[in-house]
Amino acid sequence: MLTNPRADRVRSVAALSRRSTRQRTGLFVAEGPQSVREAVRFAPDAIRELYITAEAATRHTDIVAAATTAGVLVHECTPEVLAAMSDTEAPQGLLAVCRVLTTSLDTVLASRPRLLLVLAHVRDPGNAGTVLRGADAAGADAVIVSAASVDVWSPKVVRSTAGSVFHLPVVTGLPVPEILAGLRAAGIATLAADGCGARMLPDVDLSRPHAWVMGNEAWGLPEDVRADCDEVVRVPIFGHAESLNLAMAATVCLYASALAQRSAG
Amino acid sequence: MLTNPRADRVRSVAALSRRSTRQRTGLFVAEGPQSVREAVRFAPDAIRELYITAEAATRHTDIVAAATTAGVLVHECTPEVLAAMSDTEAPQGLLAVCRVLTTSLDTVLASRPRLLLVLAHVRDPGNAGTVLRGADAAGADAVIVSAASVDVWSPKVVRSTAGSVFHLPVVTGLPVPEILAGLRAAGIATLAADGCGARMLPDVDLSRPHAWVMGNEAWGLPEDVRADCDEVVRVPIFGHAESLNLAMAATVCLYASALAQRSAG
Repeated sequence: MLTNPRADRVRSVAALSRRSTRQRTGLFVAEGPQSVREAVRFAPDAIRELYITAEAATRHTDIVAAATTAGVLVHECTPEVLAAMSDTEAPQGLLAVCRVLTTSLDTVLASRPRLLLVLAHVRDPGNAGTVLRGADAAGADAVIVSAASVDVWSPKVVRSTAGSVFHLPVVTGLPVPEILAGLRAAGIATLAADGCGARMLPDVDLSRPHAWVMGNEAWGLPEDVRADCDEVVRVPIFGHAESLNLAMAATVCLYASALAQRSAG
Repeated sequence: MLTNPRADRVRSVAALSRRSTRQRTGLFVAEGPQSVREAVRFAPDAIRELYITAEAATRHTDIVAAATTAGVLVHECTPEVLAAMSDTEAPQGLLAVCRVLTTSLDTVLASRPRLLLVLAHVRDPGNAGTVLRGADAAGADAVIVSAASVDVWSPKVVRSTAGSVFHLPVVTGLPVPEILAGLRAAGIATLAADGCGARMLPDVDLSRPHAWVMGNEAWGLPEDVRADCDEVVRVPIFGHAESLNLAMAATVCLYASALAQRSAG
């Protein structure tokens, strides 16, 4: 039972809220029952340690049982220790320290993906997480987050994915031109989603393997990125709204793709 | 030029952050350039007063000019006065006091709507606002927010709509059974969106006039509401995500409807 909120071990978990520490150690923290449950179910080998209060262990016996079965190290700790480790004010009694799950683009491409999402320079953690969740729901084969984007393994992004970060492969760290070149070489069409697109979503062939390329929430996709994509596609705005936000636009595009690919067989 | 942050007029605007004051006065506040610009464009008659700092007036000459042309009363004030009136920490230099824009269900139904959104017991301001923006983008004819939901005219909802609250009719205050009965009497199909739905989104006839009925972000739609709808429809989840969040599910459903109705002519 860990009781000292000032112990080195507690400090080293808390330090994972910093990007530099995550990069140095290759570790990140998943907080709360939803994230931890999905980690245990989908990526138990990535979990280094699971910390849980006595109260949470009583409430989430399913998580503790599954973790134990999977051979995860489970440490009981006081609420004070958990609070000291956590990025949130209410960590809900449990967190897991996990190995960063990044996959390489080559590995993703070797799996013959049919639907991918590329996030280019996305900066807001909540947006990135919500979009990842949408990509998971739509059955995307992987999400590729460009260099100079928000860190997918930050506590806020992980939380916003509601567990999806453990469900599908995530590629990080590559510059956009390199991502687009890799996709092109693999025969995957690149569709830039942008309000200035010449083609409307319903007019695009979504049955072929393709990747949606979404830009920054505030300023969209730079012109050179749009020019580097096979098509620039606009989600039609039927009312008077200026635009959809990033998460909504991405989900509409990804679902249009998922439904088109399934109805095409 | 208003300079006293403690003046009665300033206090009475600040008081509109409370639901009870909004209900008593029939007024609400739209803050920031995006909301105020849309108010001036789409509902100038609803604006009682526009407050703006000298700095913001220089930056947003288009808004001031359009407001003046529309006969809106524009008051210059100091940043301290604006901050004292505002619900946000950074009100961006301008706000408008507006008359609540609620429409009646009968008025909406008389316009022969083809696509409606019903929000039943939605409580989170950010969700409600984002969903309203999605409904606007998808060209919905109106949004009907049930009694016991978040107040659409609260500063947070208004802000989250990014101006959409001025773009389409909003009906509020009716209990869900009354809303559903009204829709049924008008020949509008009611489609409950729910993860337990028997029918999948792609299998539903969306070309007829219909209303999407969306439930609370945490606990969905109560069973009696689902039973009271014509169909219970599920957005397919192709990956491992447990669900889509409310805003994403609503936007996917509304866009599916908008595209189906347009391709049907």
